[in-house]
Amino acid sequence: MKLFAGCELTYDVPAPAPVVLMLRPRSGAGQWIISEEYQIEPNTPVVEYTDTYGNLCQRLVAPAGPFRIEISLTAETADSIDVALGAPFVPVEELPDDTLQFLLPSRYCQSDRLGAQAMDITAGFAPGYNQVEAIRSWIQNHITYQYGTSDATTSSVDTAEKRIGVCRDFAHLGIALCRSLNIPARMVVGYLYKLDPMDLHAWFEAFVDGRWYTFDATQKEPRGNRIVVAYGRDAADVALATQYGPMALKGMKVWVEEKL
Amino acid sequence: MKLFAGCELTYDVPAPAPVVLMLRPRSGAGQWIISEEYQIEPNTPVVEYTDTYGNLCQRLVAPAGPFRIEISLTAETADSIDVALGAPFVPVEELPDDTLQFLLPSRYCQSDRLGAQAMDITAGFAPGYNQVEAIRSWIQNHITYQYGTSDATTSSVDTAEKRIGVCRDFAHLGIALCRSLNIPARMVVGYLYKLDPMDLHAWFEAFVDGRWYTFDATQKEPRGNRIVVAYGRDAADVALATQYGPMALKGMKVWVEEKL
Amino acid sequence: MKLFAGCELTYDVPAPAPVVLMLRPRSGAGQWIISEEYQIEPNTPVVEYTDTYGNLCQRLVAPAGPFRIEISLTAETADSIDVALGAPFVPVEELPDDTLQFLLPSRYCQSDRLGAQAMDITAGFAPGYNQVEAIRSWIQNHITYQYGTSDATTSSVDTAEKRIGVCRDFAHLGIALCRSLNIPARMVVGYLYKLDPMDLHAWFEAFVDGRWYTFDATQKEPRGNRIVVAYGRDAADVALATQYGPMALKGMKVWVEEKL
Amino acid sequence: MKLFAGCELTYDVPAPAPVVLMLRPRSGAGQWIISEEYQIEPNTPVVEYTDTYGNLCQRLVAPAGPFRIEISLTAETADSIDVALGAPFVPVEELPDDTLQFLLPSRYCQSDRLGAQAMDITAGFAPGYNQVEAIRSWIQNHITYQYGTSDATTSSVDTAEKRIGVCRDFAHLGIALCRSLNIPARMVVGYLYKLDPMDLHAWFEAFVDGRWYTFDATQKEPRGNRIVVAYGRDAADVALATQYGPMALKGMKVWVEEKL
Repeated sequence: MKLFAGCELTYDVPAPAPVVLMLRPRSGAGQWIISEEYQIEPNTPVVEYTDTYGNLCQRLVAPAGPFRIEISLTAETADSIDVALGAPFVPVEELPDDTLQFLLPSRYCQSDRLGAQAMDITAGFAPGYNQVEAIRSWIQNHITYQYGTSDATTSSVDTAEKRIGVCRDFAHLGIALCRSLNIPARMVVGYLYKLDPMDLHAWFEAFVDGRWYTFDATQKEPRGNRIVVAYGRDAADVALATQYGPMALKGMKVWVEEKL
Repeated sequence: MKLFAGCELTYDVPAPAPVVLMLRPRSGAGQWIISEEYQIEPNTPVVEYTDTYGNLCQRLVAPAGPFRIEISLTAETADSIDVALGAPFVPVEELPDDTLQFLLPSRYCQSDRLGAQAMDITAGFAPGYNQVEAIRSWIQNHITYQYGTSDATTSSVDTAEKRIGVCRDFAHLGIALCRSLNIPARMVVGYLYKLDPMDLHAWFEAFVDGRWYTFDATQKEPRGNRIVVAYGRDAADVALATQYGPMALKGMKVWVEEKL
Repeated sequence: MKLFAGCELTYDVPAPAPVVLMLRPRSGAGQWIISEEYQIEPNTPVVEYTDTYGNLCQRLVAPAGPFRIEISLTAETADSIDVALGAPFVPVEELPDDTLQFLLPSRYCQSDRLGAQAMDITAGFAPGYNQVEAIRSWIQNHITYQYGTSDATTSSVDTAEKRIGVCRDFAHLGIALCRSLNIPARMVVGYLYKLDPMDLHAWFEAFVDGRWYTFDATQKEPRGNRIVVAYGRDAADVALATQYGPMALKGMKVWVEEKL
Repeated sequence: MKLFAGCELTYDVPAPAPVVLMLRPRSGAGQWIISEEYQIEPNTPVVEYTDTYGNLCQRLVAPAGPFRIEISLTAETADSIDVALGAPFVPVEELPDDTLQFLLPSRYCQSDRLGAQAMDITAGFAPGYNQVEAIRSWIQNHITYQYGTSDATTSSVDTAEKRIGVCRDFAHLGIALCRSLNIPARMVVGYLYKLDPMDLHAWFEAFVDGRWYTFDATQKEPRGNRIVVAYGRDAADVALATQYGPMALKGMKVWVEEKL
């Protein structure tokens, strides 16, 4: 499906503040970026670099006063995601070098502390895709989705205890549980068509049977029409905007529509 | 100046052919990409990766039949390029690690064979920027610009002998001469406002005084309003389209206009 | 000083287990590796790769039974580390791209939760080196060094509360506090001459005034004669041995001696 | 077989000269580096970095006067290399991203000029391994191995014409012919047991059937017991010593012995 998506961020900036953005999706297996448009008001110099995950990052200094960023893009996306029940676990010794970093614990995904729970949840499931799906399904059924119950310091250990959170928390928990089973797992941020309520979204990918598969613990059914914006170990790596100063986010609008 | 630029490539494809494209500029010191649009007809799956120079590369298989790629983009560009007469040479031992590869000879820039000529051209000039400018100016005055006099196999050694070529040959010669003086130099492809006749363009950058400077041996005066599309050692690295099959390029249109 | 250093790890392996090692220091600003020797018993195939931090990593599958790794190396090291009181803070917008990742919170360094404490500790100190030294000195004076009080799940937030730990905990706390002040900080593991009791060691580096400086909160005085083995965001990245199976570490011997 | 190998380079340095070395093999599929030792006389600061191919590079400034580098290493090596007649060609669209750079022409491997010859040599051979072996065998039978017939400027086009050269020229020609058939090929430098006369050696690898295979056009039979030191596009990338100043190489000794 062809999607028209984007977001608008408005800030109040008391004093000039450096910002690192991740606004610019790349074309990949499930998506083709047809067009992109960036508006930054007031006009501000931007420099771009590629981080160690391959994400395109934009650096700028937001000037004092009102500040607005608007991104809009048109993308062709896959209508469904691949589901592969039975796809086997890859033994650690056969994992590609560049997936090994996604086995390590990270700020929000303390896989070193969730091993017992992962064993419980996946008991009886075949190693690999079925374990990940058991984890995804368990989260979907046991964690309550509710805005305002978590914040930027909430980690997977917190979510495992409180059993409440938002998409980012669902993804962190899924990632931490997978890693504790020696399945590489990474964070994805992006857009999802017909997400309700509409917002930026987060989900995760797990590496089984030689490739990355998409999992979304906030959804009952596997759903396609996603636009991946960035990959990382967890939310620390893939913040759409990391600000190093006292900027106040005043408003945020997100849209994902079918492009006719 | 705000520029609207782009190109259209049309092909006749006798049998499905893999292609690697470099279509997607990044935002950097002298340019800010405001919007981009890609059209590929017929619609074809595309995957993107980042090469070792940081360029975004698009991989696809062109289907048999007529095939068309159109890229258009709007960019804010610097009206002038930095000129720094007197900027000093950086001794090799002080060069950043990632510039060292741009000292090595490459397919079209056989710096190992042009050392004597570089010494002649730069005799009496201060090491660093002034040497590079002496090279640039010498090429501008001694190489005749003429379409159809060189092809995809023409190297800087050929150009130094025949003294005729196009922008790519001018850049290759400049790069090879710089490298032979132990000044890192790299190839740039992109767009230049008011290039006459309009076409895709190539120039080079040299590393002096701790940063990269822009040099264009095809132009009498330093000119800004450039959009960099890709960087590399030479034209082998930065072909806008590298095709691995018998596709025939049937037409090519390039435009760079002021965006009002 | 010329040092002869090394370590011996002995394991009991119930079933074949994949291991990722980081055994191999590189030569850098403060050290020159003169010789290295590796013994792995029984003999086991090893493959090497470079991680995203530039560390050399060795992958192998430890066979069932007794398993032993011994590394020994001779290195020329700097007798002192640079101390630069007054070296200024680098504003985030001027940081090199590759240092930005060391501003982000990580598994053991939850800089997002320690900002207030960092402000308290550094109140009145000049931004930059002096802030980092204030942090280092505060840790040295307020955290008790004691073996057996922390484990592989202990993070900087835990250490800030319990005020007890070992070198790795000291380093994590220093890193987290620096990052919360927007000073890039990274974990270092390696050897330190005359460390008492002798063991593998951990410390941290902070980026001020355009370069990385060494800080060690376990020591009263700045001390040189260090051999850096690996760099990372925190201990998750720089484990000398990351094992993916039920291997039991039965013994560990570390030595650092003057090589006459 | 366990090998003890190394080399000694002695120079006469009229004035301090920067040098980039590639001395330090990594452990890989066919080799395990057990020990290494470096001697640099007089003692000189060395900094190490990793290039875009993953090679470990050492930077130093050779002081004026006599200068000596000695490397010695002990390695476990595979006694044979894999031979895979019939292993299939990988279509360009299925090649891993990081192999694509080894399809491009380079300084000494002008694959864009040797396509017709490659077609002639491989006529009738199955695409993939058999084509590469046909090329290797053709070079072995048609190019005369003779010292002193080529130099640092000699390229594959020269060797194809003159039909004479040394190991580096044999490798360049093999690489260029493979690339012209859209088979990724890369340069290898290292040590070969019982090479006669003993010297540093060069050969090439080609990517077929999803992995790299070793080919050596200087040898009648496939031979193992090799130590790979560095990989690159061609000799420009993998010089054991790249010097940026008027150093004179006064002597060179190479040894590869069985370690009993």
